Amino acid sequence: MARIIAILSDFGYSDNYLGIMKGVIKKISPFADIIDLNNNIKHGDIQSAAYQLQTAYNYFPDNTIFLCVVDPEVGSERRAIAIETTNKFFIAPDNGLLTPIIQNEKINIAVELNNPKFQNKNISNTFHGRDIFAPIAAYLAQKMELDEIGKIISSDTIKLMENLPKLDDNSIEGKIIHTDNFGNLISNIHLDDEFKKKRNKQDNSCRI
Amino acid sequence: MARIIAILSDFGYSDNYLGIMKGVIKKISPFADIIDLNNNIKHGDIQSAAYQLQTAYNYFPDNTIFLCVVDPEVGSERRAIAIETTNKFFIAPDNGLLTPIIQNEKINIAVELNNPKFQNKNISNTFHGRDIFAPIAAYLAQKMELDEIGKIISSDTIKLMENLPKLDDNSIEGKIIHTDNFGNLISNIHLDDEFKKKRNKQDNSCRI
Amino acid sequence: MARIIAILSDFGYSDNYLGIMKGVIKKISPFADIIDLNNNIKHGDIQSAAYQLQTAYNYFPDNTIFLCVVDPEVGSERRAIAIETTNKFFIAPDNGLLTPIIQNEKINIAVELNNPKFQNKNISNTFHGRDIFAPIAAYLAQKMELDEIGKIISSDTIKLMENLPKLDDNSIEGKIIHTDNFGNLISNIHLDDEFKKKRNKQDNSCRI
Repeated sequence: MARIIAILSDFGYSDNYLGIMKGVIKKISPFADIIDLNNNIKHGDIQSAAYQLQTAYNYFPDNTIFLCVVDPEVGSERRAIAIETTNKFFIAPDNGLLTPIIQNEKINIAVELNNPKFQNKNISNTFHGRDIFAPIAAYLAQKMELDEIGKIISSDTIKLMENLPKLDDNSIEGKIIHTDNFGNLISNIHLDDEFKKKRNKQDNSCRI
Repeated sequence: MARIIAILSDFGYSDNYLGIMKGVIKKISPFADIIDLNNNIKHGDIQSAAYQLQTAYNYFPDNTIFLCVVDPEVGSERRAIAIETTNKFFIAPDNGLLTPIIQNEKINIAVELNNPKFQNKNISNTFHGRDIFAPIAAYLAQKMELDEIGKIISSDTIKLMENLPKLDDNSIEGKIIHTDNFGNLISNIHLDDEFKKKRNKQDNSCRI
Repeated sequence: MARIIAILSDFGYSDNYLGIMKGVIKKISPFADIIDLNNNIKHGDIQSAAYQLQTAYNYFPDNTIFLCVVDPEVGSERRAIAIETTNKFFIAPDNGLLTPIIQNEKINIAVELNNPKFQNKNISNTFHGRDIFAPIAAYLAQKMELDEIGKIISSDTIKLMENLPKLDDNSIEGKIIHTDNFGNLISNIHLDDEFKKKRNKQDNSCRI
């Protein structure tokens, strides 16, 4: 059975960038089952992308490959990485986008994606989605293993997001990280945050 | 052969809501063939959604499952329903969205969707698309029967839209229900409406 | 193995037009694998559509069928055409959209699409995407041959775009044909244009 590739990006739906990534995938993995998770992330908004990933991935089948390309540092020295958890795969630039996965899942293996054998021949400075990330998603859909495709790294070296909520004895300070289509404002404070639980034990009041 | 699930909603393409519904479907029915019918319906615009459904469904193959989620009353007591016609399936909140199907097709069976066995474990108050409607579409794609999934109801109890055109001896009064991408204004008055035919018999003039 | 149909159009994502085309395709060719190349081309912008096609088609697998519907003259006498190159198929109105294919690829066969047998029964004056172009894409996905579907024409008779860059000894005069999601402006002047190469031989300076 073909694996699902769920794409999360800031490429929008008014260019051919997303369509080209799908062409690249199909050339390598004709039966890959491609789903748009959300390709209208605000340009370069890693925090919003991480939120969209966090609230979605558990609803997908085992072995789904999440191809995440929100990459404001494309063309710099930032690494391209992929990780495998107990039952999912995640591909992204190493810029904090995978923070919720690192924090909530058991990481079986993490790799840096630097093997030219699994990239397009000519790597653009601005479109690693097409030239690096999409091919990797396609090879994973073909059931190749991460350690065949990339160089093993410690998951401890993967970059985490910085703007996490701040907690002191009296308050939690968070920020709005997403406004949805219906006008709902979504903050980065979670009901089940460890710190929130801790705080609630103290006085059961909340100031946000 | 897998069945097609055509999704019609007001979820837009800037959130992960639509992608999550597709993940839920694939978890239950890995081979379901999912097509976006239109997910940019104006929020809560049942009349526009009904129009989009009416003008589209005959172009789809037999056994297509139309998953329709324009649901301004989500979380209230309104029913979730599904109907089977001679050759198609329709899933929606019971809010008038299926009016054109009820009026134009033979209804083989209609059910209320209230069996927890075919819903997600935790039902959100605001996202029945994910927790109730998408799973039903997936079970239908797996060729389950409606009477296994829901409780049979009379199709006479299904809510119809109210804003239908008004006819008297001298006029038809309708309203604009959709403006398309190209700027075309579309009214709810149909060339082959029964009342229009009746009126045309009388004087062959038309005032709209 | 099913063939891919990549759709390029100006239908947008706020109407059911694109969804209906997919329904029409699936009715004829249930296993066709449909990909959105880009359906947010500015209305009637043939030059932008040609650019989106030009920069995308080589990234797709052999035998991909490009279904291109940017058709400001729909309902007029302009022809509907299809061409086969060494390894791809292209369907479009004969309005210049296929210029980059005609100029850069070997054309094996070109046909006019005027056989009612391969069209919907009632042809709308405004929606040939649904009634003429989508069915042809579906028959090609079913591996029918172009000479079975249409009437052979000379590729010399296919309309080319007019607004190509102008060259004299001292300058190249082009125009901006696309603004992408990220704000990049894209002109119709190509790095490897024959005329540019010629010009560069002369003085290696460039005035755009």
